[in-house]
Amino acid sequence: MSASSATKSSKSSQNAIAAYMRDRGARARAAAREIARADTGLKNACLFSLARILVEESAAILDANAADLREARAAKLDEALIDRLELNAARVEAMADGVRQIANLADPVGEITELKQRPSGIQVGRMRVPLGVVGIIYESRPNVTADAAALCLKSGNAAILRGGSEALRSNLAIAQCIERALIEAGLPRDAVQVLDTTDRRTVTEMVAMPEYVDVIIPRGGKGLVAAVSEAARVPVIKHLDGVCHVFIDAAADPEKAIAVAVNAKTQRYGTCNTMETLLVDAAIAERVLPELGRIYAEAGVELRGCERTRRLVDDARPATEDDWHAEYLAPVLAVKVVDGLDEAIDHIARYGSHHTDSIVTENYSTSRRFLREVDSSSVMVNASTRFADGYEYGLGAEIGISTDKFHARGPVGLEGLTSLKWIVLGDGQVR
Amino acid sequence: MSASSATKSSKSSQNAIAAYMRDRGARARAAAREIARADTGLKNACLFSLARILVEESAAILDANAADLREARAAKLDEALIDRLELNAARVEAMADGVRQIANLADPVGEITELKQRPSGIQVGRMRVPLGVVGIIYESRPNVTADAAALCLKSGNAAILRGGSEALRSNLAIAQCIERALIEAGLPRDAVQVLDTTDRRTVTEMVAMPEYVDVIIPRGGKGLVAAVSEAARVPVIKHLDGVCHVFIDAAADPEKAIAVAVNAKTQRYGTCNTMETLLVDAAIAERVLPELGRIYAEAGVELRGCERTRRLVDDARPATEDDWHAEYLAPVLAVKVVDGLDEAIDHIARYGSHHTDSIVTENYSTSRRFLREVDSSSVMVNASTRFADGYEYGLGAEIGISTDKFHARGPVGLEGLTSLKWIVLGDGQVR
Repeated sequence: MSASSATKSSKSSQNAIAAYMRDRGARARAAAREIARADTGLKNACLFSLARILVEESAAILDANAADLREARAAKLDEALIDRLELNAARVEAMADGVRQIANLADPVGEITELKQRPSGIQVGRMRVPLGVVGIIYESRPNVTADAAALCLKSGNAAILRGGSEALRSNLAIAQCIERALIEAGLPRDAVQVLDTTDRRTVTEMVAMPEYVDVIIPRGGKGLVAAVSEAARVPVIKHLDGVCHVFIDAAADPEKAIAVAVNAKTQRYGTCNTMETLLVDAAIAERVLPELGRIYAEAGVELRGCERTRRLVDDARPATEDDWHAEYLAPVLAVKVVDGLDEAIDHIARYGSHHTDSIVTENYSTSRRFLREVDSSSVMVNASTRFADGYEYGLGAEIGISTDKFHARGPVGLEGLTSLKWIVLGDGQVR
Repeated sequence: MSASSATKSSKSSQNAIAAYMRDRGARARAAAREIARADTGLKNACLFSLARILVEESAAILDANAADLREARAAKLDEALIDRLELNAARVEAMADGVRQIANLADPVGEITELKQRPSGIQVGRMRVPLGVVGIIYESRPNVTADAAALCLKSGNAAILRGGSEALRSNLAIAQCIERALIEAGLPRDAVQVLDTTDRRTVTEMVAMPEYVDVIIPRGGKGLVAAVSEAARVPVIKHLDGVCHVFIDAAADPEKAIAVAVNAKTQRYGTCNTMETLLVDAAIAERVLPELGRIYAEAGVELRGCERTRRLVDDARPATEDDWHAEYLAPVLAVKVVDGLDEAIDHIARYGSHHTDSIVTENYSTSRRFLREVDSSSVMVNASTRFADGYEYGLGAEIGISTDKFHARGPVGLEGLTSLKWIVLGDGQVR
């Protein structure tokens, strides 16, 4: 990663940026073929080296981060953003831990499944293979640099990482650790490239080089994701809204219903798998809503309810049409009383974002219908929507949560960074 | 399917076409929810009815087809196109057979896999679900209408089918059979809609309605596929080139090598899985190339070879750079002598189209490297590239062969028309 070439191109014309990105792309493409065939031991050695080097270089990383923080504070950036940007010794240690965890996951590459004998005598199966070159565009959090690099390496992909300008120094300090780890393991240094410019045009170029980049993963606010999706000429694994529902069915166990509804809303407010609308069957509303109202009030959650909700919960404000669409990411909850499963499923189909929806019920047939008919990336029975993430699902780590229907749906881990090709084993068979 | 509304809109402005397509889309979206939850018995009953009705209505279908053929001949359309367009009693029978075969395949919808217990107490797994609304844009062959309808129905999807103008009457006759079968089974008639206009703007509209269409499958020539991909605002499952290779390794069994190389080229010339370039290791070239030259000459295959090939095969013409890129779809074959596995893999990476590539070898390690390192949708050992299709792979039927890396790769059957969602089964667990 040559800093001089980047500084130069960041100051020059679109052509220079295009040339810079195409050079990065060509190097990533070449490295991708090497990393795709690297064996598991080599990839793991590289990741364990990276974990060690991150800790060794903690002081240098924190110095770089302090400079980023000074600039961010001087520029009066948002406090939440500054919090995400800030590193300390414990956060660097956690970053190294994350990398070690990824090293300890099973290697998905080369796995052969479903090898079946065909009447012609050939055996047909599928082999899991890397996607190729993964472009990741992200904001503020510098730990994404180490995380994404480790996930891409383990899954046999080359990566081009383009972080936010506010975190450039921190990201480049981490990038130096990654480069050292690659060199130590004898892997191509171009396998992970952290862009040393944050010129906005690098994004436009990166998403429009299908010959060099196989998939783009934008991680950040809606604006970033929408802009990337609009401009992309390569597939995008993206996360849009998280308008998650819990439906308390007539046949719910009230205790479970209350536990799930409280946890799904209050365990954390700003996460995409937090419940934003609570649906309650009219038959059980009197039994659970008043108590939920008290608990939410105590937790400082503002309720916006339909008329029937407001009859049962005194301080609920009236909900408007906008509330059913809202992803509050805040201590606010929309509540609606519905008449049965069909109305609940219809409501979720109309207002939901296909992220995560949960039913609380003891009725077998109702649970089966909800599981089958709700078209979301995660559909749950008797569990808090907050479980929808890669760690809880056992993926070990995630590169994001996809709300797309294609390729990767829901939490995306190592498997989501791979594809399946068909393999045919024969003994000279012809048609 | 109202013919009058369509005739009207085909004559009117872009706005009317847009309204027509949005109406179709909204109806498909509504039907998709019903067909997604239809049980297997109902879907199969509908498909068996369709097979019966197609045969019963054979005369009406052939009449419509005769009118299409008269017009195609009057317009002096290409003979190959007219052949693809032409139906007869046997072809209608084959169409009905295909539908019955799809009815007999296992229903992929609702299948739950990999249900694992997590430390939190929840069980996490994945459920196979339909994609939603599938838009299929195709040319000439009217049998695609029945085939695509059956595949979409069985996989729980609604379909919007837009065939070529040359086959409009034939397609609408088949569409009537589909509609009758849907009604007989009590399934929504909008689950399969065959457009009754072939205005080109229907395509532009259809590929840009992400709210109504979940995926587009273009089936036809490169021009159609490229145009659809360019305009699409929804995912496209597409097939681009089929520049397939056979590599005869130094350690190949010469008999198998010759059998595979002859079959891969000569069994059919116009198919996408036909070999277009033969690579031969220098160490075995003298042993196999002269004999292959004789066999190809006898079969009328024109050879275009590198210099070393031409020393061994008298009547091979010199190959140019263009020949390594060529998808001839004709009795022409490019032949290159290479020095070992690495050169073969490099050649395929540089000139191949990621469709299907096969190695002939008796060497274990060489076969393993080829399988792993060649990045194509099908990679074979000791088998003819001609095996790369849904029937031979045991998918029962295919809606196309994808050369994409995402979602569906290689032959696309029922599974390729579905997606996986996560399901979580709990007993009231919270985080």
